[in-house]
Amino acid sequence: MNATESRCPLCREDGGLLVARHDRFRIIRAMGADAADCPAFYRVVWNAHVAEFSDLAEADQLLCLRAVSAVERVLRERLQPSKVNLAALGNMVPHLHWHVIARFDWDARWPAPVWAAPQREADEARLAALRDCLPACDAAIAALAF
Amino acid sequence: MNATESRCPLCREDGGLLVARHDRFRIIRAMGADAADCPAFYRVVWNAHVAEFSDLAEADQLLCLRAVSAVERVLRERLQPSKVNLAALGNMVPHLHWHVIARFDWDARWPAPVWAAPQREADEARLAALRDCLPACDAAIAALAF
Repeated sequence: MNATESRCPLCREDGGLLVARHDRFRIIRAMGADAADCPAFYRVVWNAHVAEFSDLAEADQLLCLRAVSAVERVLRERLQPSKVNLAALGNMVPHLHWHVIARFDWDARWPAPVWAAPQREADEARLAALRDCLPACDAAIAALAF
Repeated sequence: MNATESRCPLCREDGGLLVARHDRFRIIRAMGADAADCPAFYRVVWNAHVAEFSDLAEADQLLCLRAVSAVERVLRERLQPSKVNLAALGNMVPHLHWHVIARFDWDARWPAPVWAAPQREADEARLAALRDCLPACDAAIAALAF
């Protein structure tokens, strides 16, 4: 691990609840504050320390997007979200990771991106019901083959 | 055009300054309020009305991401941004479009996502210099082959 990597939180740690580990990437579920309003919040984290999607060779880009798309499909099938949000930002942690977030028209940030200010109070009953569904999503994601 | 499509702003209009048009997608540059703080803000818009990335067949996903990645590369080469942000959200307009945004550590929203509140005053001199570079980015993007 070089100096940059030793300072990088996604080189040092999984970055959340580890759902699946593959040779080139892992899939985690966000925990804590990140996931408070939108708990069906997964990340596909590239294992090697690269900053930008275009740093990957095309075969790796395809593999990475296959994983993102497969996680999206699991969330659509199991949770019937209003929309799935995909993003690779990395301004704070410039180590390639894709956010895959199931969004609902009742969630506290809808229809804004999860990074915008809340639009309404959280619906705790619906949030609890959604959280109850996540272990089954985790299992379905863990069973994906790439 | 069916009823859903006739109500969809990305079926009715290009959605910004048209930079390149291809059979299956187009590349536009965001104008107006969207681009005020972060003007190097491009979108790859899928021409057909599909909501989710996983609605595309894998060959189309690959084509779409080739376009996203190629736009990212042009922005990196010509603008040397601090980071490129990629996102497919679509909560407001559920017609597949990828945001490709060159971000700078001096921009008003940095290091937050562009959808979060501003972090500081806009640096008008640097913004003006950045805007001056965009026509050359547009031309380089228009010249891409897919």
